[in-house]
Amino acid sequence: MGRIGVYDKLLMIPLFTGMSMTELEGIVGETRLLFRKVEEGERVVSDGDRCGRLVILVEGSLRMSTVSDDHALTVEEELSGCHVLQPECAFGLHQRFTHTYQALTPCSLISIDKKEALRLTSVSLIFRLNLINLISTTLQKENGKAWRCPPRSLEERVVRYLSDHCFLRTGKKVFRVKKERLAQDLNEGQRQVSGCLKVLQDRGLLTLHRGRIDVPALENLT
Amino acid sequence: MGRIGVYDKLLMIPLFTGMSMTELEGIVGETRLLFRKVEEGERVVSDGDRCGRLVILVEGSLRMSTVSDDHALTVEEELSGCHVLQPECAFGLHQRFTHTYQALTPCSLISIDKKEALRLTSVSLIFRLNLINLISTTLQKENGKAWRCPPRSLEERVVRYLSDHCFLRTGKKVFRVKKERLAQDLNEGQRQVSGCLKVLQDRGLLTLHRGRIDVPALENLT
Repeated sequence: MGRIGVYDKLLMIPLFTGMSMTELEGIVGETRLLFRKVEEGERVVSDGDRCGRLVILVEGSLRMSTVSDDHALTVEEELSGCHVLQPECAFGLHQRFTHTYQALTPCSLISIDKKEALRLTSVSLIFRLNLINLISTTLQKENGKAWRCPPRSLEERVVRYLSDHCFLRTGKKVFRVKKERLAQDLNEGQRQVSGCLKVLQDRGLLTLHRGRIDVPALENLT
Repeated sequence: MGRIGVYDKLLMIPLFTGMSMTELEGIVGETRLLFRKVEEGERVVSDGDRCGRLVILVEGSLRMSTVSDDHALTVEEELSGCHVLQPECAFGLHQRFTHTYQALTPCSLISIDKKEALRLTSVSLIFRLNLINLISTTLQKENGKAWRCPPRSLEERVVRYLSDHCFLRTGKKVFRVKKERLAQDLNEGQRQVSGCLKVLQDRGLLTLHRGRIDVPALENLT
């Protein structure tokens, strides 16, 4: 990436969006931004890792995996483009990542140490607002979930279950879960759940494997 | 409240916790804090109100009500002591309150206009960190909900349903909901749900009324 290329990229990061080129140049000049390239297959962050920094995906694709507390459900999603990886985990009560991120393609990442991030929240109103807005919006979305109209059919229940376990509302997803567990979570008979999944498969919305459900595009399912 | 009393109270507000008396005095001197008393029964904030400010309960008790999108479920909780009312709603994508707050006793409140709040996040590292930590911790808790071990019995399912619709993990709660709706949400027969609720009532953990469930102390139920 050339010099202009880097700045254009930085402006696409949710934390830097809206900055003037002058402000951004000042920040890049004065801030320790840790640029890092990772190879395909490399693990960027593991579930349970201490956070203490802002980790930003700038280029490439990551697989984001989340594992349930009893390890009976794993959800894999794909992140591409500019994403700040769990910015809320650099603050608050539990300062550890709760997802694992692994490179699906060669990736470019930027890390900002928490001290540096705090300094940026002090010197830049835009960075500060972007950070607070990012975490607030995610919280608003999470808060709303429990209060939606209830699903009206088993199909809607299955679809809501799957989408409620995703961070991004679009893209390819892999659910590693046995049908027994899915049926238990939905409080529904296994045969009914299997039948419903087969109907969705027939409509090309997902494919069923042993202990795995692939959703090619969540936006088509929801 | 005397002068010392006010400062002691302010230090108990999650946004001012950890400040030195000198810093707090500086902030009180330079910031437009809107002190407000409300009478019993008065509504402080309504669901859907534009936010644009930080509203802080300093003294007294509030009833916090949340209504589901289809209006078939209302949950009432009691807040006492120092609480910032939905600080995330002053930021992010949806800057409107999603709860209604009504005074159960005479209350003292402080409002900080968003501009003033932003100025405080600029001049005070502690205020800034407290605000980000507060929102982050709430988000971490919400994020964890979908990944817990599944409930093992109908009783556990009922209890989790009730507690998942509460903001505070303790205290008195009122659920205004018909048993049909509860059974629908749990995907369970109405008779089974009614039976389970009666068992919980017999153990003194809740009392059943027509279209209403009173929980005297959520911490005893969970």
